[in-house]
Amino acid sequence: MNEITELAAQQAELTHAVDTVWVAICAALIFQMEGGFALLESGFVRSKNAISIIAKVMIDIMFGGIAFYAVGFGIAYGASNGWWAFGFGIPEGDMGLGLTVSNKLFWFIQMGFAIAAISIVSGAVAERIKIWAYAFFVLFFCACMYPLAANWVWNPNGWLAQLGFNDFAGSAAVHAMGGFAGLAAAIVLGPRIGKYNADGSINPIPGHNLTLSAVGAFILWFGWFGFNPGSTLGAVGKWELIGSVATNTFLSSAMGGISTMVYTFLRYKRIDITMVINGVLAGLVAITAGCNVVSANSAIIIGLIAGILIDVAVVAIDKMKVDDPVGAVAVHGVNGFFGTVAVGLFATKGGLFTTGDAHLLGVQTLGVTVIAVCSFAVTYLVFIVLKKTTGIRLGEREELAGTDAVEFGIEAYTTIE
Amino acid sequence: MNEITELAAQQAELTHAVDTVWVAICAALIFQMEGGFALLESGFVRSKNAISIIAKVMIDIMFGGIAFYAVGFGIAYGASNGWWAFGFGIPEGDMGLGLTVSNKLFWFIQMGFAIAAISIVSGAVAERIKIWAYAFFVLFFCACMYPLAANWVWNPNGWLAQLGFNDFAGSAAVHAMGGFAGLAAAIVLGPRIGKYNADGSINPIPGHNLTLSAVGAFILWFGWFGFNPGSTLGAVGKWELIGSVATNTFLSSAMGGISTMVYTFLRYKRIDITMVINGVLAGLVAITAGCNVVSANSAIIIGLIAGILIDVAVVAIDKMKVDDPVGAVAVHGVNGFFGTVAVGLFATKGGLFTTGDAHLLGVQTLGVTVIAVCSFAVTYLVFIVLKKTTGIRLGEREELAGTDAVEFGIEAYTTIE
Amino acid sequence: MNEITELAAQQAELTHAVDTVWVAICAALIFQMEGGFALLESGFVRSKNAISIIAKVMIDIMFGGIAFYAVGFGIAYGASNGWWAFGFGIPEGDMGLGLTVSNKLFWFIQMGFAIAAISIVSGAVAERIKIWAYAFFVLFFCACMYPLAANWVWNPNGWLAQLGFNDFAGSAAVHAMGGFAGLAAAIVLGPRIGKYNADGSINPIPGHNLTLSAVGAFILWFGWFGFNPGSTLGAVGKWELIGSVATNTFLSSAMGGISTMVYTFLRYKRIDITMVINGVLAGLVAITAGCNVVSANSAIIIGLIAGILIDVAVVAIDKMKVDDPVGAVAVHGVNGFFGTVAVGLFATKGGLFTTGDAHLLGVQTLGVTVIAVCSFAVTYLVFIVLKKTTGIRLGEREELAGTDAVEFGIEAYTTIE
Repeated sequence: MNEITELAAQQAELTHAVDTVWVAICAALIFQMEGGFALLESGFVRSKNAISIIAKVMIDIMFGGIAFYAVGFGIAYGASNGWWAFGFGIPEGDMGLGLTVSNKLFWFIQMGFAIAAISIVSGAVAERIKIWAYAFFVLFFCACMYPLAANWVWNPNGWLAQLGFNDFAGSAAVHAMGGFAGLAAAIVLGPRIGKYNADGSINPIPGHNLTLSAVGAFILWFGWFGFNPGSTLGAVGKWELIGSVATNTFLSSAMGGISTMVYTFLRYKRIDITMVINGVLAGLVAITAGCNVVSANSAIIIGLIAGILIDVAVVAIDKMKVDDPVGAVAVHGVNGFFGTVAVGLFATKGGLFTTGDAHLLGVQTLGVTVIAVCSFAVTYLVFIVLKKTTGIRLGEREELAGTDAVEFGIEAYTTIE
Repeated sequence: MNEITELAAQQAELTHAVDTVWVAICAALIFQMEGGFALLESGFVRSKNAISIIAKVMIDIMFGGIAFYAVGFGIAYGASNGWWAFGFGIPEGDMGLGLTVSNKLFWFIQMGFAIAAISIVSGAVAERIKIWAYAFFVLFFCACMYPLAANWVWNPNGWLAQLGFNDFAGSAAVHAMGGFAGLAAAIVLGPRIGKYNADGSINPIPGHNLTLSAVGAFILWFGWFGFNPGSTLGAVGKWELIGSVATNTFLSSAMGGISTMVYTFLRYKRIDITMVINGVLAGLVAITAGCNVVSANSAIIIGLIAGILIDVAVVAIDKMKVDDPVGAVAVHGVNGFFGTVAVGLFATKGGLFTTGDAHLLGVQTLGVTVIAVCSFAVTYLVFIVLKKTTGIRLGEREELAGTDAVEFGIEAYTTIE
Repeated sequence: MNEITELAAQQAELTHAVDTVWVAICAALIFQMEGGFALLESGFVRSKNAISIIAKVMIDIMFGGIAFYAVGFGIAYGASNGWWAFGFGIPEGDMGLGLTVSNKLFWFIQMGFAIAAISIVSGAVAERIKIWAYAFFVLFFCACMYPLAANWVWNPNGWLAQLGFNDFAGSAAVHAMGGFAGLAAAIVLGPRIGKYNADGSINPIPGHNLTLSAVGAFILWFGWFGFNPGSTLGAVGKWELIGSVATNTFLSSAMGGISTMVYTFLRYKRIDITMVINGVLAGLVAITAGCNVVSANSAIIIGLIAGILIDVAVVAIDKMKVDDPVGAVAVHGVNGFFGTVAVGLFATKGGLFTTGDAHLLGVQTLGVTVIAVCSFAVTYLVFIVLKKTTGIRLGEREELAGTDAVEFGIEAYTTIE
């Protein structure tokens, strides 16, 4: 009997080890998505702002990561689910979350989600925000705002979790959260100089380096195969789920790109390749909530809708004269919203289209609406306060000169002999 | 005894989990090689075509992935090994392949191989093909052509598998398949305007951004450590094999680069760095078939030969006035062929040089010849049909203006204030 | 009882498999850091040398990898710990290192450390060294120099290991080793033409492509989550350690970047973004030795110090007229030294600040001093010998024309129609 006890103990150890390997690698994949955000956004802006936006994503990582360590993690996953549940840092004991990985590793992967959410905002405020004002917002967002959403959705005692809200890897908690914060920030900041004409017409401002954006897009696409499958938080007992999540993630992204490609070709007689990149990302964002509960064929349909939605949304946002240089609001806000609602339509258990039951659809719509509205409202308020105090926007001369020169005294590209 | 049964069940579960973690991560690494293909090829072409070729690789992923989902997978791995073995999508039950991972995860990793094969073609047809004609070929290749090769080689009931053909990660099924399709496509398309002069001389057309190509090359090199070791399809019972495959993969690639470096230095008095990149890739392609059955020292020899072969092949293909802008035929076609044959020479069990037995060499040569010939012939036929119907090549004015401007209305690099 | 024996055997097999998956993936992550070195360094130099430095990192991989296979591995991990313990290649039997992964996989991950160490040197000698002289040094470094340091530190019978030296993932054995070799090489080579004026003033030579450097920086940052956590060499029984190492690695890097950002802003009234990138890397280098034995809060303090140290060191090295184009000596040499010493200050067991005991501090200081001095002295000697024989530096006209044109007959960026 002694040998059996020993074998059982060793099996428990093996389970910890397998789940740790899985989560540690997925967390690294999620972390490297930051490079994807930085390069995608950098390529989409003008060369005079190419470095500043990379600096902003570095601020997302650095300030956001430290804020989520010092304050945010406690808010999100504190045992009592109250504010500052256990103070500074990562606790030692059981956090009541049923984890098979260590608290620190769980922190590391959750931190990746937090800094992904704030990195969405960095795109929407590109080419005109003051760097230190942005850094302050990053601290606030990762210490207080995002953690509340994570608490509601992913803490077993969160109110949305208790309602049966299904947001597997964060269409709502990460993408809608970041996207609607970006919308509020872009509104308060106002458009870039020269973007909208007095007569209401729009000047497109093309990105300076689309091959760089492609580097970023491929990095993000790659990282999503840690972001979604890694949200299982373990592999033992979940090996079928992992395959299903990965396949759904791929199919939705592929179909998102295809539908944007066909849509822009039919509508403008030309494929819009920057929109196709956004279409792929839209497909990824939209499947993120439901990749664990929808069929492969539903994933294709979700991607197809997302790929059209992104085009419509980009045009609509531009018509409202909200200047979002990289399309972050349309990709993450609109499709994060749609993806969360889509769970209520397509989930094999409880989806309206699959079972005729509208209850889950109600929960999903309620949850993502609350998150989007809160994120928008709080960000709007914070930006107004910042505007009235420290200021948030560079002066006209500085904006025209470019943030790289003004804030960093540097040019991204130099040719000297 | 009850406890023992439970322990055994839990062990089976652990085996599934470990193999799933391994395959899921390797599949993600294989997937991200698409970024490598896109950026490598983009850097090797002119800036006026830099975005189009990235778009082509996105088409490889999107159209190729969906085609392999809808049709290709059934052809490749259908239980009866016949056409459309189980119709649309991924079946639920046991597919008779002895898998320890889920059918969906197996689909995801196999899809990565399919889109890698077609991505080889995108390089060979660069700078002159019509985008929708290309998209059609991608659908056909990933739905019908590649799956047949995969069926022959990797389905246990495939005719080559039954003969004992050893193509571990696809020197034949992926690389020769893609390379010879690329050769046929390049021939039917004809060379780019200005590449070959009337007097028979050749105008080199240098790539526009070699640092971008380097980004792509490093991504591919990285991904190959998922491509080859991941072809074990599991880690339990295969942990020694994984180490051996990884080491062989590295050694062949390193030696491939060295031999190209020395060869080009001796021959041209200068190191040709774009050829060194191709030499590394040639070493990777050549070891892909045999990385599971050759010794580390044999891997070095295979890489050494591959590194010279690539130089000779690039020159020979250019002399035949087949215009392959990125060297895809020489890297993947020629070295995929060589690598498959090399198994018959160097395999520790059954290799001609190691055992004196020529049987395996015969099987390897037969298999890769059939695959190369079929891939070439079918592609040639399809391209001829496309040429006569929809057309495959841009007009002269369009080609001179660049595919980015013509098909996408865009420039890769923009400098505006 | 038979069943129990079988279960135990299967558990041993599972342990091998889990540890293999972990090490194989981490080794791939470490390998891809080479792309990070190449692109970071390339962006930091002038465009006329952009390809040459990528070629140098490819030489690090190719020549360094083969040298570590043929000779270095035996020196580092030979059972008797003597020179050429088992000759050419990788032995079959038990190497006495208590490994749970195969000898070949262990070789593969260790090779990644060896080529990381030499890649540090490639930055310090940028823009002026002769390529074949560099290739010779790579062979020597990876065959003889680095393996000795690895032997001392990581071979259980190495003299530093026996003293209780804690250099978990190589602040000393990899980073100080590479950094001080780079310092010696940069001194013997002398500064680039035009870097220092006769009156003692310094001409800054800005990098040509900072977005490319950012690509490299993100790749390195990502890879460090294989470099440090992967140094556990297994996951079974180490799952808590993995989480702790990953968290410490992140926190130190984030704080390194923040402290550089704040420091350069306070000192120069402007954030220096290239220094912030180096600050992140400094935080990563400094935590590499102690990530297994310090608390999360200590990791933050270590990063904070590293981020300031890098700024001070870069200025000091420049004042000494040692021309290190990419800051490799300050990042890897100075912070590798500091990080190793910091273990003696902050280790939860035996650290001076945590326990009041100075013994470990003495061992750490001794170890890293010996490694730094040896690396410096041997490199200095080898470079003097090379200088007197083959020559190490390009001629003045060649340097002005650029290494890309002179050694490779190529330009990184081409605009042709």
